[in-house]
Amino acid sequence: VDSVATHGEEAGRWRELYARRVPGMQNDALATLLGLAGRHDVISFAGGLPDPATFLEHKLGEVARQVMLDAPGVALQYGPTPGLPQTREWFLSYLAHHEGVTLEREAVMVTSGGVEALDLLNKILVDPGDVVLMESPSYLGAGMVTASYEGQVVGVPIDEDGLSVDALRATMEELGHRHKRPKFLYTIPDHQNPSGITMSAERRRDLVAFAAESGLLLVEDVAYRRLGFTPKQPPTLCSLNPGGVILIETFAKTLFPAARIACVAGPAELVDLMTLAKQTTDQCASPLSQAILMEFERRGWLDEQVAHARMVYAERCRTMLDSMQRLLPATTRWTRPRGGFFTWLTLPEHLDSTAMAPAAMDAGIAYVPGQPFFAPTQDGRRYLRLSYSYVALHDVEEGVRRLGDVIAAAGAGRA
Amino acid sequence: VDSVATHGEEAGRWRELYARRVPGMQNDALATLLGLAGRHDVISFAGGLPDPATFLEHKLGEVARQVMLDAPGVALQYGPTPGLPQTREWFLSYLAHHEGVTLEREAVMVTSGGVEALDLLNKILVDPGDVVLMESPSYLGAGMVTASYEGQVVGVPIDEDGLSVDALRATMEELGHRHKRPKFLYTIPDHQNPSGITMSAERRRDLVAFAAESGLLLVEDVAYRRLGFTPKQPPTLCSLNPGGVILIETFAKTLFPAARIACVAGPAELVDLMTLAKQTTDQCASPLSQAILMEFERRGWLDEQVAHARMVYAERCRTMLDSMQRLLPATTRWTRPRGGFFTWLTLPEHLDSTAMAPAAMDAGIAYVPGQPFFAPTQDGRRYLRLSYSYVALHDVEEGVRRLGDVIAAAGAGRA
Repeated sequence: VDSVATHGEEAGRWRELYARRVPGMQNDALATLLGLAGRHDVISFAGGLPDPATFLEHKLGEVARQVMLDAPGVALQYGPTPGLPQTREWFLSYLAHHEGVTLEREAVMVTSGGVEALDLLNKILVDPGDVVLMESPSYLGAGMVTASYEGQVVGVPIDEDGLSVDALRATMEELGHRHKRPKFLYTIPDHQNPSGITMSAERRRDLVAFAAESGLLLVEDVAYRRLGFTPKQPPTLCSLNPGGVILIETFAKTLFPAARIACVAGPAELVDLMTLAKQTTDQCASPLSQAILMEFERRGWLDEQVAHARMVYAERCRTMLDSMQRLLPATTRWTRPRGGFFTWLTLPEHLDSTAMAPAAMDAGIAYVPGQPFFAPTQDGRRYLRLSYSYVALHDVEEGVRRLGDVIAAAGAGRA
Repeated sequence: VDSVATHGEEAGRWRELYARRVPGMQNDALATLLGLAGRHDVISFAGGLPDPATFLEHKLGEVARQVMLDAPGVALQYGPTPGLPQTREWFLSYLAHHEGVTLEREAVMVTSGGVEALDLLNKILVDPGDVVLMESPSYLGAGMVTASYEGQVVGVPIDEDGLSVDALRATMEELGHRHKRPKFLYTIPDHQNPSGITMSAERRRDLVAFAAESGLLLVEDVAYRRLGFTPKQPPTLCSLNPGGVILIETFAKTLFPAARIACVAGPAELVDLMTLAKQTTDQCASPLSQAILMEFERRGWLDEQVAHARMVYAERCRTMLDSMQRLLPATTRWTRPRGGFFTWLTLPEHLDSTAMAPAAMDAGIAYVPGQPFFAPTQDGRRYLRLSYSYVALHDVEEGVRRLGDVIAAAGAGRA
């Protein structure tokens, strides 16, 4: 049996077996982005991670131990695919309490994080060549999910009030001429990734009305909604039209990322199909994480942890914006987030944030270039994303100073 | 904006948006199976769940709390998509120790359970119409994953020594005539689900040799391998040819299901693509679960828990087989598992386990009919799966007695 002996791995030995969707899954942007992380001499505004200093690990540890002892047959066992009945009930009352929206149990499910919710949704809706609309710029990962099902992302511009409904109308008309009905529009209305922009209340109402008129399914990612620096947020799209919106709330930024827990609310018909799709992925979101989430919240510790996190991020954001005002060239502009993790910088027209990145690394500062947040057909070279969520407070000013020097050296001129 | 007001959910309102893969995902068999669970007046041999009485919940709780306190920045945070570096190193040494196989770090990754590993693999390999080979009968969930990517499952019969390599050869020839190269063969060599059969050492060597000759990728699910009632198992397929086999080891049955942790070992080229696919699903298997797994094992408690579980299941299996010998009609046959959760019953030729299921429920006994474990083109009506993993020891005999009565009443005649 000679062939067994020669099992040394030739590169690409199994290439003939690859599915057609594989090339669309390969994304250099993400590899580059991940490559920026982890260098110790660099102050990084690149990673969009929550700061573990915001987690109440003693209280989380106590809760984890307790739920295992109280109900090992639930917290350690497989759970139903749409989530534990008690988690679904809990999320319904959570939505009623926080968002004033009343739904039935069949309208909610639990997923293993927000991206998995998008994966399930794309799996049930997207055939090769189908169009999905996204804000331009938008969360890189959302576009990658659609690409992994051979779907096509079409961008809709945003301004300081969020998604432009006029631009959306024009895009839908143009798609209509080509007889393309988009499968859904993905939006992050609160403290958007990457721009830090929040969609205004008026814009939300316009968007929901237009979507309802035109049979456009809306997908609302509220990952940063609880991390607003001011007490009140505009209404969720879901609360404006529960039958036409899928809301995805990850608890990665509010409980902790390793829990891998998000909740989804939307039309029961689609939640049902997403549940079907989840039967053939991880079968259920961790019942242990679900039990921790509920018990942590029941004791009032989720609110305590989120309130603390808001303060931490608000202070860092303030320091960031103050430093930018003082230390960046006057020819640059940036957004002023009212929550979340990100601000979004616009360079003078002739500069290119991707081309500038190596010089920035040499100067000891990392950011994420803007291009990957746009559809490939759109020009995002002038932009870059800065995150203040995962950088030490005392490093913020020095980081901004280095960034200012890099931009100046690239030819923007100093303020 | 009238349309917003009328958001009441018409059934099928979004049906026009469904992807083509949706019909293939809808599987009544699973709904039926899940419907069997949860009735309290019924003794159930249906569910294939581990018994929570085998979990050391005090020790698990202690470990969970400890890993959160020791390294909140790891155990509570996002982790790298292929798994924490320390988990991958740990699994490499675990494989070396238990299976005598030495691999590189690039050959292993961590997934959110065994089914997710299959999902990722099907996603990178299966286009609509592609063929995937499976044992006949095989694990229902594996076939559902392939169907969800519009792939076609072709069954290869097993006998008392496991997968028939002669039948495989014939199937491959027949497919070759149709210019179809199967994307992979999925097998559960140890204490198979649903049959309880273990593939003999000789059969394993024949299978690996044939696969290597014919460029057939093997996928080996070792979900039940650690739960053997006898000390020694035949070698893993992976150890016989690491370059041609993907091994999937879930820790659902050995640590606890809610951890949602499996490890995968295989050709680096494919592990790499599976990692790419995982970036657009749940991004990482829970680092908390990974940390619990490693610390639980480091303290020797994983071995302790598994040794205890083996004893529990071995005793239940013995009671089950003894009861079957005494109480089932002589015209029935069944397998004698040496580990795992299942035995597989063959009824006389004229009986149909699906047709018999309602009468069984009325008699207070549940099992899983055999048909769903076969490809739709194959006849599995004579078979049924009995699980002893999740039934109380003192219910086993009474459950078998009820089953015997039901079979006798259906026309098999008493022993």
